[in-house]
Formats: sequence, structure tokens, C-alpha cells
Amino acid sequence: MAEFSLSDLETIIRERAASGDADSWTARLFARGMPKAAQKLGEEAVETVIAAIQGDRAALVSESADLLYHWLVVLGIANVPLADVLRELESRQGRSGIAEKASRPG
Amino acid sequence: MAEFSLSDLETIIRERAASGDADSWTARLFARGMPKAAQKLGEEAVETVIAAIQGDRAALVSESADLLYHWLVVLGIANVPLADVLRELESRQGRSGIAEKASRPG
Amino acid sequence: MAEFSLSDLETIIRERAASGDADSWTARLFARGMPKAAQKLGEEAVETVIAAIQGDRAALVSESADLLYHWLVVLGIANVPLADVLRELESRQGRSGIAEKASRPG
Amino acid sequence: MAEFSLSDLETIIRERAASGDADSWTARLFARGMPKAAQKLGEEAVETVIAAIQGDRAALVSESADLLYHWLVVLGIANVPLADVLRELESRQGRSGIAEKASRPG
Repeated sequence: MAEFSLSDLETIIRERAASGDADSWTARLFARGMPKAAQKLGEEAVETVIAAIQGDRAALVSESADLLYHWLVVLGIANVPLADVLRELESRQGRSGIAEKASRPG
Repeated sequence: MAEFSLSDLETIIRERAASGDADSWTARLFARGMPKAAQKLGEEAVETVIAAIQGDRAALVSESADLLYHWLVVLGIANVPLADVLRELESRQGRSGIAEKASRPG
Repeated sequence: MAEFSLSDLETIIRERAASGDADSWTARLFARGMPKAAQKLGEEAVETVIAAIQGDRAALVSESADLLYHWLVVLGIANVPLADVLRELESRQGRSGIAEKASRPG
Repeated sequence: MAEFSLSDLETIIRERAASGDADSWTARLFARGMPKAAQKLGEEAVETVIAAIQGDRAALVSESADLLYHWLVVLGIANVPLADVLRELESRQGRSGIAEKASRPG
């Protein structure tokens, strides 16, 4: 089975947001709007930074998961597909030469 | 061809870090150590929050790419595999019922 | 001589902003507008957090000075007087009982 | 009567911390230690940034008050006097020429 990916999480988040389910944390976060979602993203980033500085690997994993989740909620509210960010990351690697080398004919 | 994934970026970052290439921004960031990398992660998170609040979609894509890149550098310095974070995210979805339903016997 | 206060710094910042002096970092920061000033505030907060977690007292003093300076620039651009924030802080102490007790007739 | 100052707030915070009063938010924050206090500082900075970008003056005052309070708690836990930061700010103004001019003999 394929590994769980950020794209899978994006799909789950969009489904929950669309459900409008009042019991869903995701749906409620979408309903509260961008300022609250962006605030949560910022807060989770602070906690990730602290875990990293403390060298606390378990906290780094846990806070990173919170960070990615809230970041995808922010993208979702902005209606920006994750694929746009991945394409941006890919194009930067190309500019730095890595993808360029990889794409050279043998 | 498969879409560029965060896992591809993780591989690129680890290769560059291992290269120790003085011309590589990634290698230099690893050399400077965790406090500097964590600081960059925090700064990019602030810029992502601002782009989101301003409703600037292009900036949101660009700052998000910076955020993910520096976050993966932090993970790399901490020697935490991206897969650990994805597994954490997957397990949370399970606890929230999505994966649970998916895993029910037919 | 009275100690240097945040109010003194507020006065200096407002004078520099009003000068429009292209050699003044403060004047240029005002000219660039709120998003850039708020970004700087956020970045200095991240650095203050890191210094605090690392227990680096010298860095904590230095980053705190950066934080307060950029925060006052943000207030200045928003045209919010420092006095409004100090009044808010004072009123909260009152609500918590400290100022209330202090103001009781003898 | 003199205006409420950051120095007054520093005194109040230190008194509450020393009291160890379980009903005091400040005393509990000191008891939880630096990581939690620094996290709160970071979170309030994020909220201050968002209020500033949104141009919400009332929120900017309120979040700024939260930011200064938690910053003073961080200083208190690190045992760094507010006066050290004010002295640092004053010395920077001197280096930039303002205090220098002010201190010239008439």
C-alpha cells in the first residue's frame, strides 16, 4: 500500500471542510475563517521551533504534524492546491541544478 | 511521471547536506546548525501567515515553499525522517474515524 | 537623570519617521509599510523565543531590544500610542486586584 | 500621578511570581517554566502581527498588552531585568547619533 502523503491529508481536509459537520474540528476551523487558521499555523510553527531547539524529537514529530495540518487548512481556505506549492518547490530545485542534471539525456 | 513530492525534496536536501558543498545553501544551513535553521523556519512561518491574512495567493505559494523547505532542513538536522511525521498524521486521521472506517472489514 | 523608557524610544521613532530621512532605518521601515514592519516584529519574536529557550541571556537582551523597537514601529505605523497599551496593561492589573488594593484609602 | 510603566508591570509580575499563589496566572506561568512562557510569547507575537496586518487597532492594543506581559514573564524567568533591555535600547540610539547630539555641551 502506498504511504500516506500530504496529498491524502489535503483530500481528507477538503472533504471535512465540505461536510460542514459541526463535530469536525476541520469544518469548524474553516467556518472560523482565515485569521484563526493562520493564527493556529503561526502557533504551531512556534511550538515546532521550540521542540527543535530543545532537541525533543517526539515533540518535533507531534508539533510538525500540527503545523502541516494547519498549513493545509490555510491553503484550503485560500483555495490554493497543495500541487501549486509542490510545483514551486520542484521548479526551485530545477533552478538550483539538481533537476537539470537529472533530466540530462544519458 | 509521478508528481514531485515532499519525500523527493527530503531526498534532495539530505544529498546536499551530505555533500558539504560550500556553494550549496542547504549544506551551509546544515553547517550552521539547528538554532539558525529553526529561526528560518519561524521566519518563513511568519511570512506565510502574513501572505494568508493579506489574501495574496502568489505570496502564499512562495512563502509556503520556503516554509516547507526550511521545515525539512530542521527535520534533517534533527535526523527525524519525514515518514515519521506522515505516519503521525495518518494515525491521527485514524483516530478521527476516517482511516478507521476505511479499515473496516467489508 | 531619569532612566531611558519605552516612551523615550517611541518619541525617537516618531521623530525619525517624520524626518523621512533616507539614511534612517526607521524612516525607511515606515516607508515600506505595515506588512514589512509586522514581518520584522514576528521575526524578532522568533529570535527572542529561541534565545529564551537556549538560556542565552545576552542574546535575550539583544533580541528583546529588537523586538521592542520593531513593535513600536508597528504601533507607530498603525498610529496607536504606546500610552494606549500601557493603559490596557494597567487596567488588567486593576481587574486582577493588585491596583485595586493599592488604590484603597488608608 | 505618574503613568503606569513597563517597570511597574515588571514589579507586579515579580511579586506575583514570588508569591507562588496557585490562583495567580503569573505564578503558575513561572512554575511551568521557560518553554511554556516562551511559547506564549511567540503566540502573542503572532496575534499581534495578525492584528497589525488586519489594521484592527483595538486588537493591536489588546494583543500588544498580551505580548508585553508574556515577554516580561520570559525576562523574569530568565532573571533578566527590564533595565538591561532599556539600557541596550538607549545605547543603540546613542550609536545612531540621537543621544550623541542630545548630550553635546551647549
